[in-house]
Amino acid sequence: MELLEERIRQEGKIRPGGILKVDNFLNHQIDSTLLFEIAKEFKRLFEGEGINKVLTIEASGIAMASMTAYLFSCPLVFAKKSKSRNIGDDVYSVEVESFTHGNTNTVVVSREYLGPQDRVLIVDDFLATGAALAGLVNLVDQAGGTVVGAGIAIEKAFQGGGDQLRAQGLRIESLAKVASMDDEGHISFC
Amino acid sequence: MELLEERIRQEGKIRPGGILKVDNFLNHQIDSTLLFEIAKEFKRLFEGEGINKVLTIEASGIAMASMTAYLFSCPLVFAKKSKSRNIGDDVYSVEVESFTHGNTNTVVVSREYLGPQDRVLIVDDFLATGAALAGLVNLVDQAGGTVVGAGIAIEKAFQGGGDQLRAQGLRIESLAKVASMDDEGHISFC
Repeated sequence: MELLEERIRQEGKIRPGGILKVDNFLNHQIDSTLLFEIAKEFKRLFEGEGINKVLTIEASGIAMASMTAYLFSCPLVFAKKSKSRNIGDDVYSVEVESFTHGNTNTVVVSREYLGPQDRVLIVDDFLATGAALAGLVNLVDQAGGTVVGAGIAIEKAFQGGGDQLRAQGLRIESLAKVASMDDEGHISFC
Repeated sequence: MELLEERIRQEGKIRPGGILKVDNFLNHQIDSTLLFEIAKEFKRLFEGEGINKVLTIEASGIAMASMTAYLFSCPLVFAKKSKSRNIGDDVYSVEVESFTHGNTNTVVVSREYLGPQDRVLIVDDFLATGAALAGLVNLVDQAGGTVVGAGIAIEKAFQGGGDQLRAQGLRIESLAKVASMDDEGHISFC
């Protein structure tokens, strides 16, 4: 998606340790018009797949996921990060390591909101090591639902998570795939 | 807003301590069509006020705030909950007590994303004691911006936060104002 790649080139900031900051338009301040274009692209890519639920993880994926759900005329469910590992049996849960924050979260979804009838599109702003995405797939599997695929805004392809999950048969559509970044601020796309 | 009051009546769950759970359509699973109707109502109410930024706080307010920002053709900024009190001087910060979670968060917004030129609409899903809303107003004040008003989905009027802030001159538009709730599950609206 040319529009998104251009914004990343112009406004993305590279931080030590392979961190790409897009706080200016995606992660803290959000360009709502760009976001709607992203949602429309997910709609175009996954149209006709019978999607009846969009799943994301809090917090920064919620905005684009809610617009995507609106375009699919279906509910959005967002998985919550739980502070305690001591959670009830009314939820599906999984442990997810955060690359950006360097910690591990227990991520939960209420059993009420995912089930065998669900054909789920997972939406998230970033894909790097793939830990969050694999965790969300795991939650849908626990519920007996079907993951139709994943719509990702920015994939850091050089971290390999996307290709690992594709090799396991997951359909992943990333709108901007970063091939490499360096400390001088150069970003190249696949 | 009749549509929202009806959903609260039908699907809201009352929990001890004045907690109203609307996880079925607003806080965990989100009815994206209802959300868009809420955003349209905020647009109608605050049209012509020169709003050029929407501000909310993570996590559950993000979805309706992003749709509202889209309808106003302006950016959304979401304030972040910071784990540490030891934050940089590149952010505005404020302490906010959470009624639901019984803890205090340091809430921050980067100085890059709020300034004197901003006419801000604050959007949030809930208004109870008013602590979160007062915190967001405080952040805009620190930035020298103007708070045009606040668009709230559900106000728990019996907790008084809304009226306190209205008395200070803040324009608050709440789409469903809960006058009282009881443990038998009865909810009445103002």
